[in-house]
Amino acid sequence: MPTTRARFHESATLIPVAQHLEAVLAAVRGSARPAGVVEQVRLADAAGRTLATDVDAVLASPPFDNAAMDGFAVRWADVASASPAEPATLTVVGDHAAGSADPASARPLGAGEAARIMTGAQVPAGADTVVPVERTDRGEDADGPGGVHRVRVFSAPDRGRHIRRAGEDLRVGDPLLEAGTLLGPRQVAGAATAGHASLPVVRMPRVSVVATGSELTEPGETLAPGGIPDSNSLLLAGLVREAGCAVVEIVRMPDDADVLRAWISEREPCDAIVFTGGVSIGAYDVVRRVLGELGTVDFVRVAMQPGSPQAFGFLADGSAVFGLPGNPVAAAAAFEVFVRPALLAMQGRREVQRRRVRAGLVTGWDSPRGRLQLMPVSFVAAQDADGAGPEPLVRPATRGGAASHLSGGLAGADGFAIVPEAVERVEPGGLVDVLVLP
Amino acid sequence: MPTTRARFHESATLIPVAQHLEAVLAAVRGSARPAGVVEQVRLADAAGRTLATDVDAVLASPPFDNAAMDGFAVRWADVASASPAEPATLTVVGDHAAGSADPASARPLGAGEAARIMTGAQVPAGADTVVPVERTDRGEDADGPGGVHRVRVFSAPDRGRHIRRAGEDLRVGDPLLEAGTLLGPRQVAGAATAGHASLPVVRMPRVSVVATGSELTEPGETLAPGGIPDSNSLLLAGLVREAGCAVVEIVRMPDDADVLRAWISEREPCDAIVFTGGVSIGAYDVVRRVLGELGTVDFVRVAMQPGSPQAFGFLADGSAVFGLPGNPVAAAAAFEVFVRPALLAMQGRREVQRRRVRAGLVTGWDSPRGRLQLMPVSFVAAQDADGAGPEPLVRPATRGGAASHLSGGLAGADGFAIVPEAVERVEPGGLVDVLVLP
Repeated sequence: MPTTRARFHESATLIPVAQHLEAVLAAVRGSARPAGVVEQVRLADAAGRTLATDVDAVLASPPFDNAAMDGFAVRWADVASASPAEPATLTVVGDHAAGSADPASARPLGAGEAARIMTGAQVPAGADTVVPVERTDRGEDADGPGGVHRVRVFSAPDRGRHIRRAGEDLRVGDPLLEAGTLLGPRQVAGAATAGHASLPVVRMPRVSVVATGSELTEPGETLAPGGIPDSNSLLLAGLVREAGCAVVEIVRMPDDADVLRAWISEREPCDAIVFTGGVSIGAYDVVRRVLGELGTVDFVRVAMQPGSPQAFGFLADGSAVFGLPGNPVAAAAAFEVFVRPALLAMQGRREVQRRRVRAGLVTGWDSPRGRLQLMPVSFVAAQDADGAGPEPLVRPATRGGAASHLSGGLAGADGFAIVPEAVERVEPGGLVDVLVLP
Repeated sequence: MPTTRARFHESATLIPVAQHLEAVLAAVRGSARPAGVVEQVRLADAAGRTLATDVDAVLASPPFDNAAMDGFAVRWADVASASPAEPATLTVVGDHAAGSADPASARPLGAGEAARIMTGAQVPAGADTVVPVERTDRGEDADGPGGVHRVRVFSAPDRGRHIRRAGEDLRVGDPLLEAGTLLGPRQVAGAATAGHASLPVVRMPRVSVVATGSELTEPGETLAPGGIPDSNSLLLAGLVREAGCAVVEIVRMPDDADVLRAWISEREPCDAIVFTGGVSIGAYDVVRRVLGELGTVDFVRVAMQPGSPQAFGFLADGSAVFGLPGNPVAAAAAFEVFVRPALLAMQGRREVQRRRVRAGLVTGWDSPRGRLQLMPVSFVAAQDADGAGPEPLVRPATRGGAASHLSGGLAGADGFAIVPEAVERVEPGGLVDVLVLP
C-alpha cells in the first residue's frame, strides 16, 4: 500500500492545534449549510436552537406604567405632607388589579382621589406615585359619608416612586438578542416579553456517527475473542446532541472498506459525519483508506495528546467529515477541540468554545513537549481559607491520565486541563486552565 | 380578609436563604418520591437521567492485553540487542487486527517469532512487547525461503512496552459511577466500556407549571389594556426541563380563586407544581389565598433580593408546591436558589447546586442590607495581562440590575452574582461569586 505510506510520511509533521482548528472553522463557515437555512419556530420550541438573526423588541417592556407594589395610586401633591399624626385622607375612586380595571375608574384621578392598585396593574392617568399599602390604613375601614371609601395615608414616598415606567426595561426597537445566541429559557422568556411569538433559528445540523472497528460489540452482548464494547457510538452521539445537532444515523461497522463504501453511497443525507476509529496508519484503518481515495478529506497529525491523528474534509455532496481516533479519551478530547466548535460554527453560534476556568492542581503530571495536552480532570472539594468563595482545584480523572485509552475513567471527568505545548510537567500547587464540561 | 393579613404579619420576619433552602431540601428528601422509584433504561436512553444506585464494572477494561500501537508483537528477549546495523530478524507467524485474529496464529508465539499486530488487537500468548512499526522494515518486503514472511527489527522498546494490560483502566468490581450522578455522554460511554447495557435511573419528576395573573396574555397576541405577554410559563417550563424533569402541564390562569381550586382538583397527577404570581400580599393574590386555605403550604419572606415572597409545601396527594413571585427576574432567581436544588434533590442528585466561579467586577452597585442579593450578570471579554488564561469579569446584565422586574434583560444573563447579606455595596475591581448559568 504505497499510497497509505506516502500519506503517512507527508503528514508526519505535527500541525499546531490552533492552526488546525482555524482551518476547520474556516472551511465549515465557508460552507453555507446549515447556518444559511433559517426556520421560524414557536417560542415553546425554541430552546436549544441557535438564533439566526438579530432580534429587537417589538413591544415595550413594561408596555405601560404599572405599580411596583400593592398600595394606592395617588397624586403626590395630595400626600406630600402626610404624617402619622396628620394623615392625608383621599377618596378611593377605583380598584386596579393586574390585567383588569374597574370600568368606573377609567377616568383620570382628580385632586384628593386615590385608586387602590395591585402590583403589575396599570397606573391610572393623573396618578404619579404609588403609596405602598404599609404606609396607609389599607382603606378598608374608612367608609366616608354616603358609602364612599376613603384611605388614610400616613407618609409619602418620594414623588414618582413605586411605578415601573413603560419601556423602562425595553423600548420598541431596543436590541434584544444577537444572531448566533443559543436560546434557553431566559432568552425565550425575554423574547416573549419583547412581543415575539416565534423566533428565527438556524436549521439543526444533521449529523451521522460512524464507529468503525471489527472489535466493536453492542454494549452488554457477549464478547467474541478480541471484542470490546462499543462505547464511542454512545459517546459521540451524545456529544453531537449536546452540541445542538440532530443525530441522523448511528452506525457501527467492521474494518471493511466495501462496507464503508456502501454506507457512504447509501447513507441518509446529512450535514456532517463523525467517524471514530480507522484514521491512523494501520493496514486495517479503512476510514483512512476509503476517504483518502476521495481526495477531499485530509488526514493529519495534530500537536495534541491524546487525539493526534485527525481527519477533516468534505464528501462530494458537501457533508463535512470528521475522523477521530478510536481511543475513547482521544475521541472525546478531539471532539471538544475540533468537532464541537465546528458543529457550533455550522449553526452560526457566536461562542464556539466551552467556558474555561483556571484551577489549582492537587497533583502534578508529565506532558509531552511540543504537544498541547488535554488531561481529563475532576474538580475536588473546594478549599476556601477565607470563606469568601470557591477556589477550584482539580486532579486527573482517569487512572491512566491522558495516556488512558478507555472510557471508564472519562465517566468521572468534569473537564479537560489544557497544558500548553511548551510545558513538560505541571506541579502540585500550580495553576492550569480547565475546559469545563457540563 | 383577616386571615390573609394575619398570615402576612406572621411571616414579616425575613428568613435567611440558607435556612429556607435547608427546610425545602429536608422536606423534599423526606418525601420518597420520585427518588425512590427506579427504572432500568438502555444506555442510549440514559443521558440526562440521574443514576439511582452505585454502579461497578462488570467487565474489565481493556478486557484483554492489547496493542497500544501498530507494529509487531514479539518476545522481548529476541529483539533486546537489535540495532540498525544488526537488526533482529523474526519469522512473522500471524496477523492480528482488532476484533479478529488469524486462526492459524492462535498458538503462542515461539522463540524467533513475531506477529503483525494493529492497535487494539489482542496480544498473542507468548509475546511480552510490541515493537512499533516505525522501528521495523514493516515486514512487507522480506519474504524468506519458502514464502515465509520475515520482519527486521532495528531497535527494541523497553520490555513490556506498547501493551495495554487487561484491567489497566478498570477491573471487574471497580467502582464506576456513584448514585446521584447526572448521566451524560461520557458516563454512558463509561458504562458501556464497563460491561453494562442499561443503567438504573430515578424516575423523572413530573412537574406542572402554573402562571397566575389576569394580565397574562399568550405571547404575540394583541394585548388588552393592562395586559402583558406571559413569559414566565416559558421561563419556568424551560428551567424545569433543564433540571431533568418532565413537564406535565403548563397552565395560565386569571387571578380567580375558583379557577385555581378547580385546577387543583382536576389536574394531572404530578410530583411538583411550580406556581408563579399570586404569592405576595395583594388582595388578588389567589395562589396565596387558595393554597393558604389548605394549611399545608407556607408563605414566607426570605432575606433575598429579588424573590423575597416564597411559598413552599405539599398538597394532600404529596405533590410538592413551590410558589414564586410573578416578577420574571425574581422568579428566575428564586428558581435557581430553591426550586432547582429541590428538583435535583427529588432525583437523588449528589450535587444540587450550580457551579460557582469568582469573578471580577467591572462596575459597582448597591445591595440591600440584610438580604442576599442575586444580580443577573454577564461575563465580559476576559482580560488577561499575562496571557496565561481567562480571568472572568462580570457586569450587570439588565438595565435595571437586580431591581429590574422584566425578563427582557434576563436574556443576556450568564449568571447571578451573589452578594452576601452584610454587603451594602460592591465596587468596581472587587470580587464576587457568580452562580454560572448554562
